Amino acid sequence: MKRRRRTLRMPVILTVALVLALLYSDRSALGALQTSGASSGKVKNIILLVGDGMGPSQFGAAWFYSNRILGRDLKMVEVMNAGHTAYLLNDMADAIVTESAAAAGQIATGRRMATATVSMAADRNTPVQTIMEIAKHKGVATGLVTTAGITDATPAAFAAHVPHRSDESSVAEQELRIGVDVLMGGGKQFFLPEISAGRRKDGRNLLDEAEAAGYVVIGDAEELKAAMGVKILGLFSMGDMAYEIDRGRTMEPSLADMTTKTLTTLSRNPKGFFAMIEGGRIDHAAHWNDAAGTIRDVLAFDDAIGVAVDFARKNPNTLVIVTADHETAGMALFDTSKANAGVALTAIHKAKASFEVISGELGRTPTAQKIQEGVKEHLGIQITDDEAMRVASDAIRKLDPASHNSEYLHTLAVVLRPYLGVGWVGPIHTASPLYAFGMGPGSERIKGLLHNTQLFEIMKAAVE
Amino acid sequence: MKRRRRTLRMPVILTVALVLALLYSDRSALGALQTSGASSGKVKNIILLVGDGMGPSQFGAAWFYSNRILGRDLKMVEVMNAGHTAYLLNDMADAIVTESAAAAGQIATGRRMATATVSMAADRNTPVQTIMEIAKHKGVATGLVTTAGITDATPAAFAAHVPHRSDESSVAEQELRIGVDVLMGGGKQFFLPEISAGRRKDGRNLLDEAEAAGYVVIGDAEELKAAMGVKILGLFSMGDMAYEIDRGRTMEPSLADMTTKTLTTLSRNPKGFFAMIEGGRIDHAAHWNDAAGTIRDVLAFDDAIGVAVDFARKNPNTLVIVTADHETAGMALFDTSKANAGVALTAIHKAKASFEVISGELGRTPTAQKIQEGVKEHLGIQITDDEAMRVASDAIRKLDPASHNSEYLHTLAVVLRPYLGVGWVGPIHTASPLYAFGMGPGSERIKGLLHNTQLFEIMKAAVE
Repeated sequence: MKRRRRTLRMPVILTVALVLALLYSDRSALGALQTSGASSGKVKNIILLVGDGMGPSQFGAAWFYSNRILGRDLKMVEVMNAGHTAYLLNDMADAIVTESAAAAGQIATGRRMATATVSMAADRNTPVQTIMEIAKHKGVATGLVTTAGITDATPAAFAAHVPHRSDESSVAEQELRIGVDVLMGGGKQFFLPEISAGRRKDGRNLLDEAEAAGYVVIGDAEELKAAMGVKILGLFSMGDMAYEIDRGRTMEPSLADMTTKTLTTLSRNPKGFFAMIEGGRIDHAAHWNDAAGTIRDVLAFDDAIGVAVDFARKNPNTLVIVTADHETAGMALFDTSKANAGVALTAIHKAKASFEVISGELGRTPTAQKIQEGVKEHLGIQITDDEAMRVASDAIRKLDPASHNSEYLHTLAVVLRPYLGVGWVGPIHTASPLYAFGMGPGSERIKGLLHNTQLFEIMKAAVE
Repeated sequence: MKRRRRTLRMPVILTVALVLALLYSDRSALGALQTSGASSGKVKNIILLVGDGMGPSQFGAAWFYSNRILGRDLKMVEVMNAGHTAYLLNDMADAIVTESAAAAGQIATGRRMATATVSMAADRNTPVQTIMEIAKHKGVATGLVTTAGITDATPAAFAAHVPHRSDESSVAEQELRIGVDVLMGGGKQFFLPEISAGRRKDGRNLLDEAEAAGYVVIGDAEELKAAMGVKILGLFSMGDMAYEIDRGRTMEPSLADMTTKTLTTLSRNPKGFFAMIEGGRIDHAAHWNDAAGTIRDVLAFDDAIGVAVDFARKNPNTLVIVTADHETAGMALFDTSKANAGVALTAIHKAKASFEVISGELGRTPTAQKIQEGVKEHLGIQITDDEAMRVASDAIRKLDPASHNSEYLHTLAVVLRPYLGVGWVGPIHTASPLYAFGMGPGSERIKGLLHNTQLFEIMKAAVE
């Protein structure tokens, strides 16, 4: 009896010891989890979200607009606060100020790229393996989604290799050849031969070829909803998709809708997936110095981030990374004598069309009166006769040789500054440092000051 | 015997249990430490460094200049990488775009402030306790250092309470009355009566009063070196101190020199210290759209950060926080047809004088020829006749009502864009989100997206 009681007692004490040990262990592990915001498991899925042209100021403008006018916070903030944040530099092999092809290539390959090359080495001719290709070799599903053309620089850099980003016909072919499981965006023109109103000079119809290769090929928001299958090619416009502010006039899906379908489709692969989701037209609106257009596209991008966050909450083995390729046009909210920023945000809220739509309607050399009417109709702003004349004479462009591509829109943006409370440096990219932030396993490496080539290393470590 | 052995065995097993528990506990604690980069001790000293007007782009421009032209990295990067980083918003009680008094007040008090008030509640008349006052009540030493006037908005917000920042005579009096142990910067004019070329209308000579109250009063770099004592009032110019780019022509100490003396002096207090170090003229140079002046002042601020980092390495119970109050002028590096960014950085390196010195020499309405000569002499740039005429006619200011304060300098900055590779939105503050980063105990709370009022909470938690 005594012996039996002793043998019983020892396990009891050992159990107490183990419970104590586990208690300490658990408490510390819980602390670590709370500090890092990362689940410590292995990465199964990677969702990389790129806001093209989204610098800190574009984020800031959208944040104020969303919080003060729409009364809700951005999903981006949830990622920043639950996960990890870094400051990001993006200079290239041959210049300080980058463009989308080189920037995306650097994120995709971890190597410094030359201007306008698509995932090529410095010789502009030797392909450099991308994170998507590495992921594909591991057998995971892959997807590329953008509101620009699917053959445009950012998606191209993950799945194609061409000496110059303008060769979008080759990009289309390579994206299908590598077999990216989901491709969604604009850019249908590079999949169609000239005879079908496309821009392919080789006469091939890549939509037909894709269908033969097992892709479900879709073309509008309704078809997107209905689409089933493990491989989807969704091309929703010939060129870029519409700006978010103009989307209501089209049959196009939102970036969030495309993201939802993409994640649902790719997550059927038991090995996981790699997806790159681009808010592709933030950059374009900023190039035009179009404040409302830029902010609305940041919000559409943020909705897509929300989809990714929801997915990651349900699938904690998902690494979510949000970043940008470069800042566009030196956007800045600022106060002026005519309108304090609160009033200005309301003015931004009233805008009903992008600068691209407005200038499309006005033509290349509108009269001052026509400009005044167009601005009133689409932006709800009554500019003065004098201001309208300044825009018609394109005064800024004559002073500033850097503005040669923007017709009178840069001058319009300067005239609108007091009304919208948004200013711009010009129509081109800047070297402003960017944000990179993320959540999920592996995101703890997003910290301090990073170069965008290091985002490749972070994703590669997660894939391996 | 048997009974004794049994009683011995139980403690042995309990010890094993405790060792197991501690092992788990220690391993996790070590992990947390490695992740956070922070020593977990109690905070003894706080060094808050504020780059006035230093947005992400000002940091980026200085980073490229320092790495590519000077061949060395910034000390800021060491803090970012060794410590913790956050994105920072800074909107006020009454507007989105802030200015230095409200922004500094928000950091100092944790409360949203109204434009131009100095640490006052929304009624503009009720003082709100500052972090420096809280620290002082705990018996720690305190110091304020700036390259602007010591009575200017940023230092004022930590030690004074006035309805409007322009009341610098009251600020001077309050800074001495509260007994800030070390005060260094410019702004001597607010310590002297009009009869002594000062701006005090009350006839008081605060330098004499300070000396009587036990301050060592000094006025140039040599006296700074020699200064001993626990209370120092160092006023090195009547107004702002010189821009770093112009400092060689003066007897003024650098911000780093002032910081070194300040930390040495304050650290004699066994209870520790609170110090606010401001790079005060980054903002001013940016207001003038002066690229070289801005970058050199960011570098001078970075040298001061280096002093703080060295101190914190030797005194690990020091919390170092680096941030800014707002971004000024929408600065951006960008590429142009005339000069790629590498060439542009070299041009910035050749600049020998600030825009303030150049415009001081040229006067308010210089001829095109005089402008051409002045730009050649001080900036080493040969602008064309046409460009010089544009500057002389101040073309941009006429177009842009927001530029009314900058005379022809904003136009000069636009003309210089192709040469310097630096653009500006205008002459005023923007709402660009900022950086906040830090190292040392308590810095792990610098994460995600913060509002600048939260920096107060982080410092307050460290003080308590």
